[in-house]
Amino acid sequence: MTESQAVASIEDTVVKVAGAATVWAATSEAERARVIRAIADALDAAGDSLIRIAQEETNLPTPRLQGELKRTTFQLRIFAETIEKGEYLGVIIDHADPEWPMGAPRPDLRRMLVPIGPVLVFSASNFPFAFSVAGGDTAAALAAGNAVVVKAHSGHPKLSDATAAVIADAAARAGAPEGLLEVIHGQQEGVDALKHPAIKAASFTGSIPGGRALFDIANARPEPIPFYGELGSVNPAFFMPAAATARPGEIADGYLGSITGSQGQLCTKPGLLFVPEDSTVVESLRVATSPSPAPLLNERIQESYVRELQRIQAVEGVDTIKSGDNSLADPPEATVLFTSIDQVLADPETLIAEIFGPAGVVVTYSDPASLTEVAKALDGQLTSTIFAEAESDSDLEVARDLLPILREKAGRLLWNQWPTGLSVTYAQQHGGPYPATTAPTTTAVGTTSIARFLRPVVFQNFPEALLPAQLHDSNPLGIPQQVN
Amino acid sequence: MTESQAVASIEDTVVKVAGAATVWAATSEAERARVIRAIADALDAAGDSLIRIAQEETNLPTPRLQGELKRTTFQLRIFAETIEKGEYLGVIIDHADPEWPMGAPRPDLRRMLVPIGPVLVFSASNFPFAFSVAGGDTAAALAAGNAVVVKAHSGHPKLSDATAAVIADAAARAGAPEGLLEVIHGQQEGVDALKHPAIKAASFTGSIPGGRALFDIANARPEPIPFYGELGSVNPAFFMPAAATARPGEIADGYLGSITGSQGQLCTKPGLLFVPEDSTVVESLRVATSPSPAPLLNERIQESYVRELQRIQAVEGVDTIKSGDNSLADPPEATVLFTSIDQVLADPETLIAEIFGPAGVVVTYSDPASLTEVAKALDGQLTSTIFAEAESDSDLEVARDLLPILREKAGRLLWNQWPTGLSVTYAQQHGGPYPATTAPTTTAVGTTSIARFLRPVVFQNFPEALLPAQLHDSNPLGIPQQVN
Repeated sequence: MTESQAVASIEDTVVKVAGAATVWAATSEAERARVIRAIADALDAAGDSLIRIAQEETNLPTPRLQGELKRTTFQLRIFAETIEKGEYLGVIIDHADPEWPMGAPRPDLRRMLVPIGPVLVFSASNFPFAFSVAGGDTAAALAAGNAVVVKAHSGHPKLSDATAAVIADAAARAGAPEGLLEVIHGQQEGVDALKHPAIKAASFTGSIPGGRALFDIANARPEPIPFYGELGSVNPAFFMPAAATARPGEIADGYLGSITGSQGQLCTKPGLLFVPEDSTVVESLRVATSPSPAPLLNERIQESYVRELQRIQAVEGVDTIKSGDNSLADPPEATVLFTSIDQVLADPETLIAEIFGPAGVVVTYSDPASLTEVAKALDGQLTSTIFAEAESDSDLEVARDLLPILREKAGRLLWNQWPTGLSVTYAQQHGGPYPATTAPTTTAVGTTSIARFLRPVVFQNFPEALLPAQLHDSNPLGIPQQVN
Repeated sequence: MTESQAVASIEDTVVKVAGAATVWAATSEAERARVIRAIADALDAAGDSLIRIAQEETNLPTPRLQGELKRTTFQLRIFAETIEKGEYLGVIIDHADPEWPMGAPRPDLRRMLVPIGPVLVFSASNFPFAFSVAGGDTAAALAAGNAVVVKAHSGHPKLSDATAAVIADAAARAGAPEGLLEVIHGQQEGVDALKHPAIKAASFTGSIPGGRALFDIANARPEPIPFYGELGSVNPAFFMPAAATARPGEIADGYLGSITGSQGQLCTKPGLLFVPEDSTVVESLRVATSPSPAPLLNERIQESYVRELQRIQAVEGVDTIKSGDNSLADPPEATVLFTSIDQVLADPETLIAEIFGPAGVVVTYSDPASLTEVAKALDGQLTSTIFAEAESDSDLEVARDLLPILREKAGRLLWNQWPTGLSVTYAQQHGGPYPATTAPTTTAVGTTSIARFLRPVVFQNFPEALLPAQLHDSNPLGIPQQVN
């Protein structure tokens, strides 16, 4: 295919999706929920064959993929439920008020959120289901009433097409417009789509350089559009002194488990673990049993993992305390590096960095007060975690100093739990200041993520016959309305 | 002052505000509401002297400024009331659930919105109170728990300092931290502040080129930050045929009133008015009495008004049907230009453009269907307005075709009312796709504008003693909590 053919094909695809978007935006919540559930059912039914393709393309083990698909279809269903409830519309009705104390009469104003328009989703390498074609961004965009172009990840192109085919078939049978979701392939094709004027928002899950480049393109458009990028996070975990003394085994086993789950290819992996220098954690980690090595998602990721690990191993004052040379093998063994808080404070740019793969850095501190210094040096994070003994006043004191700083840095704060494993639910927050995301006021996971793909519109002085049913005083759909 | 002194002074100011931000973010809603009300009371008390300065600097008539100050202090008070109610926090509590159907147990998750951090507000020329130092962006940022740096508009520097002094005094007496709000002056100083890493969000009201330049700077930072710019809008108004026949006087008088209020220096001014070609509106406008000419805000605005008007008058097929040569006088007389829908469709880039000042363009159409073509050619708008006869089936039919297109383009849709005059209330939406704003998912006016300066944080598995009171199961503050 020549370059101009590729551009033409992107043009055709976006125009097709934009056509579907107009039809889909006009459907009721009940109708959209029905279609979304039909898609979830079809994905479940096609699970065996989809998982087989996913396994071939990503090296992820079958149980992990089965769990991920289950999470993905659950996610579609909880979003269907959310739009049916109607709270997501943010309806506010202010009746006309000639005596409004602002000093001028208030007209009748009725506000609701409406679909933002066609959405471009860049899918992720590490979650071929949950953050890809049928993943959270797609689910949120569809639930909000938008049609979707998905840029498939180069790591799982066949799965992307197979997933899209299942969705297209289920959507068609459920009566949804053709072109509700289309998949495109190729880096340049993704950029072309991002620049297309019909695309009104984009989302991305991946690396900092890739995400930043696309963010810059989205903002440089003649009409800039919201770009919801989830880029990188180190996810520091802080063990308070008494907790470290009381639970050395939990540190070693828990940490090893958390950094090796999905071969460490998780955006919530706790890359830095802070422990008191007099704790026995280093020894415990040395002797703890690692899980069997397993291949990373693909060769490109293996190569960049090795490169990144070597870069950090080369820093003076950084030791490899677990797995040694096997760190760099293919598949790699779980690796733990070791350094001191003074090293980290001396060179935070190098040492506070995400390593995508089964490795973590243990950092020892002598003075708990130095943890607040490290916390202040952090960039934005998806998560930050504190382990403390509930009965230890000194642990609680350190935690109370740390918490307000971590709250400024991270979207999810955890207490005595590891950050890997992300529940899809109403209260979830998966986001944070840059570079965790490019949109710190939003979340990429959880039902409030739907709001990213909506924009508010207010109707002033309209007769009921021309208002959406959601804004009628009689409230025929029974959705939450905040009145006056 | 040398350049390095100016930079040092911006550094000092931002650091001071950042210090106040930490204290302010930790205050309760009740405390913040008390301080904000004290500020509103102090501004009302200082009204006479502030209005005198405003009159000198902006040429706006005293009654208009009195109304604007009233609106401004009302706005502060309604934001205080809004945070006290607590809904704005978006609290969602999900209790731990071992049987959560996602396939993995759900931990205890408690979500709320927290202050985004120090906010930089670029104030507007045309609202020295309501969109300036004590204006909507400041009110929203303070209510959300953020300290504020205001870049004063060069059109009213003395008023900006005087307003800031009233605020500082009232805030200090109410026990707020020093540095809660600081004013800076100068274009380069504004840019320096925007680049400062301690600034976590910015807002702007002004022109498209100015706003776009600042938007680009905000996005090019090492850590990009949300930039809420309200830039430009043409605010088209469409008279349906039967309405135009039934109410020619309303068109002429209403339109003339709407484009000359505040000398046409309003972001919601209906710059384009579409009327049927067989209507008598052109004749009515010719004979209607214009309000007395009054000076524009300042010389720079007068000059750019004249330049813009001349640019459009020079287009072939555009006639000046009201005020003629007096259009370009200082002060300028209300001016109405006249053209056809074919002209507009032939050159939308030139003719669909905001003219900041007392001028409007009347566009005639023969086929109502062509209105949908124009609507599709529109950029993003703050408002779009339809005038129609409720009893006319043909009017309603045209309106029904237009509405879905206008809904994609504008944040506020109006029916049989002019768009100038913007109520500050719960349901208000003042925003829209670019270039109306740089953030189409948000609003610059109304109580939901507070959300721009908040970001979500979820607390996972925390003991109650370490949770904010807003997230306690006992709900001691009695705020709305969505549970499970």
